[in-house]
Amino acid sequence: MVPKKTLKLIKSLQLKKYRYQEKLFLVEGAKSIVELLTSSLRVRTLIGTSVFTNQHISLIKRYSPKLELYQAEEPVVSSISSFKNNNAGIAVVEMPVLQVPSTLVGYALVLDNIRDPGNLGAIIRIADWYGISTIICSPETTDEFHPRVISASMGSFLRVAVYRTELTSYLQATKLPVYGTLVNQGTSVHDLDFAGQGLILLGNESEGISESVKSYITNAVCIPQFGKAESLNVSMAAAVICDNMKRNTEGNLG
Amino acid sequence: MVPKKTLKLIKSLQLKKYRYQEKLFLVEGAKSIVELLTSSLRVRTLIGTSVFTNQHISLIKRYSPKLELYQAEEPVVSSISSFKNNNAGIAVVEMPVLQVPSTLVGYALVLDNIRDPGNLGAIIRIADWYGISTIICSPETTDEFHPRVISASMGSFLRVAVYRTELTSYLQATKLPVYGTLVNQGTSVHDLDFAGQGLILLGNESEGISESVKSYITNAVCIPQFGKAESLNVSMAAAVICDNMKRNTEGNLG
Repeated sequence: MVPKKTLKLIKSLQLKKYRYQEKLFLVEGAKSIVELLTSSLRVRTLIGTSVFTNQHISLIKRYSPKLELYQAEEPVVSSISSFKNNNAGIAVVEMPVLQVPSTLVGYALVLDNIRDPGNLGAIIRIADWYGISTIICSPETTDEFHPRVISASMGSFLRVAVYRTELTSYLQATKLPVYGTLVNQGTSVHDLDFAGQGLILLGNESEGISESVKSYITNAVCIPQFGKAESLNVSMAAAVICDNMKRNTEGNLG
Repeated sequence: MVPKKTLKLIKSLQLKKYRYQEKLFLVEGAKSIVELLTSSLRVRTLIGTSVFTNQHISLIKRYSPKLELYQAEEPVVSSISSFKNNNAGIAVVEMPVLQVPSTLVGYALVLDNIRDPGNLGAIIRIADWYGISTIICSPETTDEFHPRVISASMGSFLRVAVYRTELTSYLQATKLPVYGTLVNQGTSVHDLDFAGQGLILLGNESEGISESVKSYITNAVCIPQFGKAESLNVSMAAAVICDNMKRNTEGNLG
């Protein structure tokens, strides 16, 4: 039986307020939990269905004998999960403490006020695909520990570090080129020569990059439009920009 | 006052069964409705909030004097909408009747069993951005008239025609190259020379392209991976492939 106070804690962690009060967040679903248990993050509690825990018992034991482990039936797991149906489990994980790095290797993404958790999760997954391990977010960007960010990242939250800082001072201090993604303004990403290192700046879903941040763009870049859609979703734009950057710099770096 | 039978009809159109029984579908939200009213689709009924209808009254009147128009308060509109909050309106639209085209101009996307409405909507938007006006879907692909497909397409459903047919016979009949998107198999999309015309084949979110369809691939293509994410979401993959195709063919076609 899962103690009532544990169930209550988990439910509360769906909300940002309690995540930061407790410095804990949730990881849900089979794929993410399996990857979590091979990571260096500290898992405090794991509630798993019997099918999931039996299947992964050696991994769970290898992770830590001190892990607080409970078995629960699927309806109980689903009732405290942000997934409609969760047939695997939920882990309660300690938030890592991260300091914004003063130096970078290769590229980082800089996110100005991304609001949709699904977009942030998708962008973390894209960064991981393209070997980008650093994301710098404005303070207003949606919480990277939101359950939907974690699940949309498909395990990539374990390999991509997300930092949060005031963008104007961060960009003022950098010596790296700042590639600002705009709609129908700037150099086409097909024609741009990317430097070996840099920052790719992406703006809010409806407002784009805010005015105060725009002035730090050193290279305005756009994705050429061939049809009539007004815009691309910000996570699609991230994928296309990263792909072009890698296509362009891969030869130089390799 | 909106008649009860109209409210009931609209609610029923959230479900595929009733959409095809009535041959009607829903378009929700300000941006999509405004674009709809300048399209050639036949709108049967429009329920709008007073703010929305007053703002767009000349557009609504220009569309057709025969349009069945009702004003309703926002809570009423939201209660029959698939959006949590809908402060604009809902339109009831006749499904267009489309025949799979026997010839193509440029490229088409071919979707093998895309299941998530958000992904299908995103792919329609990407097609529209890259000037691709034809999508061919397998019969099992999620319904293109699903409210979430319509809203995720951000109005692009009006410019991209979605057809539905058995893919094996369709691909058997084509003389165009079939670029099948695979994970870590085939030619890197950065190295591929795309023909001036062709089909871009994308597979199911978890299973990829099905075995029976795979044999019609003439050019296997993959998106090079630089990090550790296992895969890219299918709509991200669509964006990256379309961008590379345009980057590569644009010079040849233009």
